[in-house]
Amino acid sequence: MTVATAGEFGLISRVTARLGAESPYVLLGPGDDAALVAAPDGRVVASTDVLVEGRHFRRDWSSARDVGHRAAAANLADIAAMGARPTALLVALCAPANLQISWAEELADGLAAEAGKTGAVVVGGDTSASPTLTISVTALGDLGGESPVLRSGAQPGDVVAVAGRIGHAAAGYTILSRGFRSPKLLVEAFRRPEVPYHLGPVAARLGATAMIDVSDGLLADLGHIAAASGVGIDVRRDAFTVPEPMRDAATALGVDPYGWILTGGDDHALAATFPSDTRLSSDWLVVGSVVASSLFTAGDGVTVDGRRYAGGAPGWDHFR
Amino acid sequence: MTVATAGEFGLISRVTARLGAESPYVLLGPGDDAALVAAPDGRVVASTDVLVEGRHFRRDWSSARDVGHRAAAANLADIAAMGARPTALLVALCAPANLQISWAEELADGLAAEAGKTGAVVVGGDTSASPTLTISVTALGDLGGESPVLRSGAQPGDVVAVAGRIGHAAAGYTILSRGFRSPKLLVEAFRRPEVPYHLGPVAARLGATAMIDVSDGLLADLGHIAAASGVGIDVRRDAFTVPEPMRDAATALGVDPYGWILTGGDDHALAATFPSDTRLSSDWLVVGSVVASSLFTAGDGVTVDGRRYAGGAPGWDHFR
Repeated sequence: MTVATAGEFGLISRVTARLGAESPYVLLGPGDDAALVAAPDGRVVASTDVLVEGRHFRRDWSSARDVGHRAAAANLADIAAMGARPTALLVALCAPANLQISWAEELADGLAAEAGKTGAVVVGGDTSASPTLTISVTALGDLGGESPVLRSGAQPGDVVAVAGRIGHAAAGYTILSRGFRSPKLLVEAFRRPEVPYHLGPVAARLGATAMIDVSDGLLADLGHIAAASGVGIDVRRDAFTVPEPMRDAATALGVDPYGWILTGGDDHALAATFPSDTRLSSDWLVVGSVVASSLFTAGDGVTVDGRRYAGGAPGWDHFR
Repeated sequence: MTVATAGEFGLISRVTARLGAESPYVLLGPGDDAALVAAPDGRVVASTDVLVEGRHFRRDWSSARDVGHRAAAANLADIAAMGARPTALLVALCAPANLQISWAEELADGLAAEAGKTGAVVVGGDTSASPTLTISVTALGDLGGESPVLRSGAQPGDVVAVAGRIGHAAAGYTILSRGFRSPKLLVEAFRRPEVPYHLGPVAARLGATAMIDVSDGLLADLGHIAAASGVGIDVRRDAFTVPEPMRDAATALGVDPYGWILTGGDDHALAATFPSDTRLSSDWLVVGSVVASSLFTAGDGVTVDGRRYAGGAPGWDHFR
């Protein structure tokens, strides 16, 4: 059955039926004009991210459930990168009239499953027909009384650390775009990010001075921290161990795996700066340090081993 | 200059520059991973609505600023219909690469201006290229310690009242789709809804038992209240005075103006039920009453002058 056959309200009721999770944060879920979500400390963290077919995902590369996982992860990671705990998602689905309703249902399953990893619940949304399959997600979160970790607090002398996978999604993207389907680790990493959400609030409590999730690419996203903080950041390339499947894939494809690691986006790892005496658990990999910078422009404040990185334009521009 | 020429970050910075409003609710605005919004009573109302070009708006019928007003209004009205005060908007803009950046800037102006009517501010968002111009908005709101007004509280004996314009947007849509550009009142009503946002919290304090904003059409939306409340609703046709420009347009086009009033959506008027002894100000027009219903199905619980309305299928399905 297509979404047009089911109709707007049929689609909404079938999708809503898949979301059944409960949460103490959800005071009122789908079905009214708006949802009502608890914000126990009197503040709510909120972020929106949109995924467009052909640009952020392809239906022949990713299942509906995969797309749901990715759409939720992109937003939940933004909440975690503030040091907050995700509480709720709102989802707007724009779908071609001939989309199978099972695709929308499996998308909802993926959204709900990814949200469930953080304790968050899908509380509302909207649907419309559109020629372009588009999923827009808003995530809400709770800081639990802590101060938000901004991009602007990095200080010279801080260490730069990352938690989560780096370069995996970009490697998976390259592999899929060359027509291959393995190594599975990397292809799956593109389909479903594995985000260490809980380490966001942990970083806040450890005294992280700045934090961001790696969506545009490590150097580009550290560039956002550098620009917002008015500092430079130097990354040590040898801090990264290239995992074996990535090395093999890079060799087979004739590419530099550090391109994936340093400039590949969409893993939604957390990248944070900490005072140098912070005791970091093994979840974190120290990859560089914050340095003073008297001369920089946005995105240019990041070096690799002391030099401007020459491995291509870092980051991902969703209009190019 | 097109959005592709400006690039994602150029677009974001140019759009963000138009949003400059301040609000005590906004603890952190655009520019970080997420925004931070005050939720003083420990809860936040949240709703998402999406507008798709060709389905919800046409660029030859509405200016960018009009579309911004409409996109914001559709969401802000949902917050008001809970009895809450809007505090913040998040906006995801999907745009063809050749969209002029001035269009995006004027869209932002319209969003900010409409939000400003309620005291709300645009606090964040996302952008992506897409073949289909799409604007997804999430609105947040504050109940100020009041209980939310749901769809499910209507009681037999309650009166049904509406605040705001009814049928105007639908009349404007019909006029534009027949190739006309006047009467201006109706065409402008399609372009920019005029929503009595402040009456949402007023209705809550007056003891409204149920409330909804009229986006699908009055009978369809009252049907949502009837279904959620397990009641019937009878609307009196002669409660409505057809405004002169609407009567003239209906005559010229050969249509029944009550079709617009009873089934036309997108005015985002507020429709609420109140105990019959509630003293309502002249902002409210009493249009019917809540009746007991032992037999109804969703959308079928509403009658006009005691009979099923025969003027065509009520409501608007965004997949048909």
